[in-house]
Amino acid sequence: MQDPNNDGFLCVTCTAPVNIAVIKYWGKRNEKLILPTNSSLSVTLGQDELRAKTSVAVSSDFNEDKMWLNGKEQSIENPRIQNVLKEVRRRARKRLSDSENEADLLLKHVHIVSENNFPTAAGLASSAAGYACLVYSLAKLYGVQGEISDIARQGSGSACRSIYGGYVAWQKGKADDGTDSYAVQIAPETHWPEMRALILVVSDQKKDVGSTEGMQTTISTSELMQQRVQGIDKKMKLMTQAIKEKDFPTFAKLTMQDSNQFHAVCLDTYPPVFYMTDVSRQIIQLVHSINDSTGHIKVAYTFDAGPNACLYLLEKDVPLVVSVVQHYFPLSTMHITGPAVSEYTLTSDDLEKIKVQPNPGAVKYIIHTKVGCGPQVVTDPAESLFSANGKPKHESSLEK
Amino acid sequence: MQDPNNDGFLCVTCTAPVNIAVIKYWGKRNEKLILPTNSSLSVTLGQDELRAKTSVAVSSDFNEDKMWLNGKEQSIENPRIQNVLKEVRRRARKRLSDSENEADLLLKHVHIVSENNFPTAAGLASSAAGYACLVYSLAKLYGVQGEISDIARQGSGSACRSIYGGYVAWQKGKADDGTDSYAVQIAPETHWPEMRALILVVSDQKKDVGSTEGMQTTISTSELMQQRVQGIDKKMKLMTQAIKEKDFPTFAKLTMQDSNQFHAVCLDTYPPVFYMTDVSRQIIQLVHSINDSTGHIKVAYTFDAGPNACLYLLEKDVPLVVSVVQHYFPLSTMHITGPAVSEYTLTSDDLEKIKVQPNPGAVKYIIHTKVGCGPQVVTDPAESLFSANGKPKHESSLEK
Repeated sequence: MQDPNNDGFLCVTCTAPVNIAVIKYWGKRNEKLILPTNSSLSVTLGQDELRAKTSVAVSSDFNEDKMWLNGKEQSIENPRIQNVLKEVRRRARKRLSDSENEADLLLKHVHIVSENNFPTAAGLASSAAGYACLVYSLAKLYGVQGEISDIARQGSGSACRSIYGGYVAWQKGKADDGTDSYAVQIAPETHWPEMRALILVVSDQKKDVGSTEGMQTTISTSELMQQRVQGIDKKMKLMTQAIKEKDFPTFAKLTMQDSNQFHAVCLDTYPPVFYMTDVSRQIIQLVHSINDSTGHIKVAYTFDAGPNACLYLLEKDVPLVVSVVQHYFPLSTMHITGPAVSEYTLTSDDLEKIKVQPNPGAVKYIIHTKVGCGPQVVTDPAESLFSANGKPKHESSLEK
Repeated sequence: MQDPNNDGFLCVTCTAPVNIAVIKYWGKRNEKLILPTNSSLSVTLGQDELRAKTSVAVSSDFNEDKMWLNGKEQSIENPRIQNVLKEVRRRARKRLSDSENEADLLLKHVHIVSENNFPTAAGLASSAAGYACLVYSLAKLYGVQGEISDIARQGSGSACRSIYGGYVAWQKGKADDGTDSYAVQIAPETHWPEMRALILVVSDQKKDVGSTEGMQTTISTSELMQQRVQGIDKKMKLMTQAIKEKDFPTFAKLTMQDSNQFHAVCLDTYPPVFYMTDVSRQIIQLVHSINDSTGHIKVAYTFDAGPNACLYLLEKDVPLVVSVVQHYFPLSTMHITGPAVSEYTLTSDDLEKIKVQPNPGAVKYIIHTKVGCGPQVVTDPAESLFSANGKPKHESSLEK
């Protein structure tokens, strides 16, 4: 915590990761508390490439609670932000009730500044990282201890999984008040050091149907959804086992099947909900072609509520897969962020086995990343997103 | 039957219609007999726009059974053609066993010539019309009486529905030998005179995954398929009732939901099977926009194993829907086959309510048609597809 002027300005800055589910969350049994219809399981990605960063501060100079997201002021009245703020303050009040600091901390207004290092709302789980970061930062600011993934869940369901690094399960729970619906780490980020993710960004456009609306409609109209829900617990067990045993082919096949099934129930919705495009489909065909041509499952795709693909694969296969993607989606300016990728020269034999039509420019860039850790406190005061006046350093005057 | 030279050359020519299912057939419980996993229901379309035409002949001059499809000789050894030929001959033999004609008819070789008036294998149910036409023609040639839709079924499952006009159910049946798996007419083509179909042809390319292979993979890998199968009988009842009562909104909603559910189980297949493209999806959005903007369900989409849409709608709404399609998929050369469509001028109010991005050229042409009759015998000898030598009139030397 930083207290730059010693006049009651208390500030915390944290970062939190993106997670990409391999067993997808889709459907709520309780809209207000964000309790899911089924359990889900995700991989936390590296924060060097994908993270939210949030600074929160209290000061006696602040006249009201305020929030800025990516340089643009947002209404703090957003019910999900309010739910999260209220719950953190409630837990803080409980803890501080006997302390003289209570008035100091809980009576002051809060300013929140948050930024992502990647495009918002393009199906890249920005809200998960954002709410995880907000809750983690507020918990640090107010000194809230213990499990906080259930608070993050009330901001955005999948945010609860971004509270932990590595491989994370969100147990749906049974209780009506949601107390047993939180995230648990299945394995830490160090467990399977060879695991890599490649995010193929095909579009940075906002999706047509938001996931909140989409999943509501699926729950109320899809006949197939109940079959999906019935099968999830078995898949959670198989996936957990595959991760613990580092069994990549099983992990990969379950991941692909679950992604397809999630999009299948979206399509079985009335009116139907589509998140994948022709390019997403080409990526799917390319992945199956790579796996078929090598005779081994080397790479898995998964798609969230948007057209971008997340490929999971092992370190040894990154050069081949990146080369294949660059060959079939050629783009002179395609850049790859993240750890350097070794050169790999595709042979005519490689190419002959992969029967996919090239589509120049369809993949805009690639994010290469590892499995990462959970939220972190940023101790360097220079990294705070606040300027001295308690407003964002990077306020966008244009977008405001 | 024509016997031009009185030297034992017997020839029959028939036409048969295309049908487009509103409750889809997908999955076999018996591959050889083509017994379906679920019942299905279709609308038979008008033959002026969409039909197969087949001439079959026997002659003592023929040295072997032979077949030509769209001017190109095909192997008669195709197991499905063989199944159909054997079954027709078996029934003919039974009927003719006491007759002196037996030797004459059954010992001679057969020539088969078939042509479609629309592109083959573009998801336009060409095999249904083709096998219905073949079986109907052979039945006429050999004098086979009684139910023949079960023979057509053994050529191509959905062909059994093209044996009748109007609205046709294919009852899946329970018997292991398939004797109770045949088509029945729910209502004749005259029952609902206002019903129209518009086929939006977006591509005449062949599909990636044939339906035989696709449905096998769905049955063996899709978890959601069993839920679909469980729900079909209820849908068959609701759809039959909607047709009998001419309840268009219910007919339309069930049609759209079933199409989406069929494509959902294709997507839940491993590897996933895709038949719809981005253009198919735009058509779906356009249809929902039209229905939402008018506050009534005026039009329904359905997609078979290909990207082309079949829209069902009532005569009064054809001018509006055609105008909207032409507005959002503008193409200077877009032609419409079938009954003339009245002019309709879209108002700015119409356009304002329909929020879909135009996509010039994505729809290549429109086939406008009514609900049609079952197979017909063509009596005019000039319409035979045979030349005098028992070979096709229109043999394609290039394609052969």
